[in-house]
Amino acid sequence: MRYWEDFEVGRETVHGSHTITAEEIVAFAREYDPQAFHVDAEAAAAGPFGGLIASGWQTAAIYMGIYVRAELRDAAGLGSPGVEELRWLAPVRPGDTLTARSRIVESWPSETDPGRGTMVGENELVNQDGVVVMRFRARMHLRRRPPQNG
Amino acid sequence: MRYWEDFEVGRETVHGSHTITAEEIVAFAREYDPQAFHVDAEAAAAGPFGGLIASGWQTAAIYMGIYVRAELRDAAGLGSPGVEELRWLAPVRPGDTLTARSRIVESWPSETDPGRGTMVGENELVNQDGVVVMRFRARMHLRRRPPQNG
Repeated sequence: MRYWEDFEVGRETVHGSHTITAEEIVAFAREYDPQAFHVDAEAAAAGPFGGLIASGWQTAAIYMGIYVRAELRDAAGLGSPGVEELRWLAPVRPGDTLTARSRIVESWPSETDPGRGTMVGENELVNQDGVVVMRFRARMHLRRRPPQNG
Repeated sequence: MRYWEDFEVGRETVHGSHTITAEEIVAFAREYDPQAFHVDAEAAAAGPFGGLIASGWQTAAIYMGIYVRAELRDAAGLGSPGVEELRWLAPVRPGDTLTARSRIVESWPSETDPGRGTMVGENELVNQDGVVVMRFRARMHLRRRPPQNG
């Protein structure tokens, strides 16, 4: 189990990759973001992006899926209070391979709860051409490592 | 069709509501955020939130789904460059009814593209008890109304 102490400032990690399909783009968007350029390939081709692109919220969720599987499932996570400066920097298209990476930029123990700490990560998705398609900064609460007996 | 000119500063709108189920919470989280308190009701009951809660990314996506259906499907949307100060303020639990509302706080025409404008919305989801569970500020690009002939 990883605790707050294990997420040190300056730590840079590549968490993994995911190749997105047109089917995934449309399935997400039908439920959560049914703008024409996310759900209708034909309308999208004639639209502002010249083809189908992923919802920005799906892009963020794809980062999270990769990150949780790589880092957070075995960590004592206590949720996140929020995100700063979420930027959708370039369109995500069917067939793009997105690699998730992050750097821990801040970390502090709770002033009120001795069992908790907070860290701030700068998180990115980069596509197969090296283009950063999304970036955001998120706070994460984690449990602190319990005192060892013996 | 609604254009940039139709989204005036000060405009406040309630877009609609959605009642979230445990099945939706788990289905989203299995794919995009498989932390125990999002995917495993039993583990969640013993975890930091005392039960299953929705991924914050799903909460944002639910806002977007309601908003797009109410406001954006008939608007000349050109996508969003990003979001500021996304805050997950209270847990979202199975059975919660979330109402989406927004207020337009800023708006300006593009300096480089006479056919485009940008607006900034302050967007919230409120639950059945009147608790704001999520808030964020987003920029949206829209096409400007074309000049009328005649």
